[in-house]
Amino acid sequence: MVQVPVDEEGIVDLDILEILIDKDTVLVSIQLVNHEIGSIQPLREISRIVKEINPQTLIHTDAADAYCRIPINVEDLGVDMLTLSNHKILASKGAGALYVRNGVKVEKIIHGALSTQTLWLGVENVPSIVGFHKAAELVYRDFNKQVTYVKELRERLLNGILDEIQEVLVNGLLGEKRVVDNLNVSFLYVEGEAITIELSLNGIYVSSGSACTSRVLEPSHALLAIGRRHEEAHGSILFKLSRYHSPEDVEYTLKVLQESINRLRRISSIKPRRAKNVH
Amino acid sequence: MVQVPVDEEGIVDLDILEILIDKDTVLVSIQLVNHEIGSIQPLREISRIVKEINPQTLIHTDAADAYCRIPINVEDLGVDMLTLSNHKILASKGAGALYVRNGVKVEKIIHGALSTQTLWLGVENVPSIVGFHKAAELVYRDFNKQVTYVKELRERLLNGILDEIQEVLVNGLLGEKRVVDNLNVSFLYVEGEAITIELSLNGIYVSSGSACTSRVLEPSHALLAIGRRHEEAHGSILFKLSRYHSPEDVEYTLKVLQESINRLRRISSIKPRRAKNVH
Repeated sequence: MVQVPVDEEGIVDLDILEILIDKDTVLVSIQLVNHEIGSIQPLREISRIVKEINPQTLIHTDAADAYCRIPINVEDLGVDMLTLSNHKILASKGAGALYVRNGVKVEKIIHGALSTQTLWLGVENVPSIVGFHKAAELVYRDFNKQVTYVKELRERLLNGILDEIQEVLVNGLLGEKRVVDNLNVSFLYVEGEAITIELSLNGIYVSSGSACTSRVLEPSHALLAIGRRHEEAHGSILFKLSRYHSPEDVEYTLKVLQESINRLRRISSIKPRRAKNVH
Repeated sequence: MVQVPVDEEGIVDLDILEILIDKDTVLVSIQLVNHEIGSIQPLREISRIVKEINPQTLIHTDAADAYCRIPINVEDLGVDMLTLSNHKILASKGAGALYVRNGVKVEKIIHGALSTQTLWLGVENVPSIVGFHKAAELVYRDFNKQVTYVKELRERLLNGILDEIQEVLVNGLLGEKRVVDNLNVSFLYVEGEAITIELSLNGIYVSSGSACTSRVLEPSHALLAIGRRHEEAHGSILFKLSRYHSPEDVEYTLKVLQESINRLRRISSIKPRRAKNVH
């Protein structure tokens, strides 16, 4: 397995990808939207490059953080497989979906008695499967409106942070190449963990670092991959917005956030190194 | 892999088990309670026999249908591993538990980025995990009372069926070796599938055949293993009772069941072969 590097905006380096693909490449798997910094990958172009060099190479995308946020068409994207997950679209945990293009054979991972099930084993989580359908339905009945609404909330949060708090780094791209519900910000000279605690005491739930590494207190590999230093990655906070948030929620978050960062910086032992906002 | 045969009451044949175990036996896996016919296996004796012949052989039990119904003590049972499942204890689907005795090493089945998780991969289903705890708590605060209550309901349902409906076969054991919430009955000359539909139209949900084979309309392998003929297995109905059922529910079920069986037998093309109840 080889990992393709990303640029400082978290976008897969297409030149290196092109060099890495050869006649032996079985599978390329790329997140359509990065879970941490929300970068939308140029998947259509990636598929084109890969298939041109080796048409046998299968392309899989983890679209969990893209679904219900950007339009997805498997034909357009040129992917052979695509995964989705309940908890990323505000449905209850316990189910997900795997799209497999006609003609692509996928093997069972788990084997056992339920020979009638082709890919997975065990009793299906029917309530979560129904929930998946319902959650998607609630988005797709007015997709554009919801996406615009969430984006406006995110922009207000972003601008509020940049206006009111000094010395922050926005992680990842701004503009059209960032998914609408994601905002990832490093607050310099403060531990991310401390911020999450302060905010949660005020009823605001955000995450720090990566869910993948939160149990070992390692900095997010996505943030290190885009060139953040360890201490910058450690102070990163991921905000996720949804149609269930209101403009008032955002104003409240900004208020609590400003107070928390000020307080934490006063008691912080980490010394300033940068002088102004970078984004 | 070798399957150990069971007797006509669904109990593992200990003499054959003893012959099958040798120095190369890695694992013995036996359900503590059979999911379909509720037979409680003599697991303590099985463990003793296995460990006497080969102390290195690991013993696993699927205790999903035993937990919250019979007392379970892993030391007493002599097992190295034990599995439980949410949906078998009236908790929401999506979680379960694996007990692993200290010193036993279990390998990951699924590998990937979340290196901090030792056995499984992915985002934990926290609501279902909390639900598991709550469901178990609700049983164990008055375990004996609940078990007795459920058993009384089951006995009333069983006796009602035997009194009011002719030509039924009770599948599995009666008495102390059958788990309290399980009743599995074959109604001769009627398709199980037809019964489930009739009952469900009246708000009563039961299953026919085995969940493992329900999609291919094959008869339950558990029922064939205890010597039932195909047509007997096809007419089998599994009733499961719980603390959420009332005596009135049981009387209502008996009434609907009697009417349904009578109606279905009048229109059935299957000819009688047996003359009386066998149990």
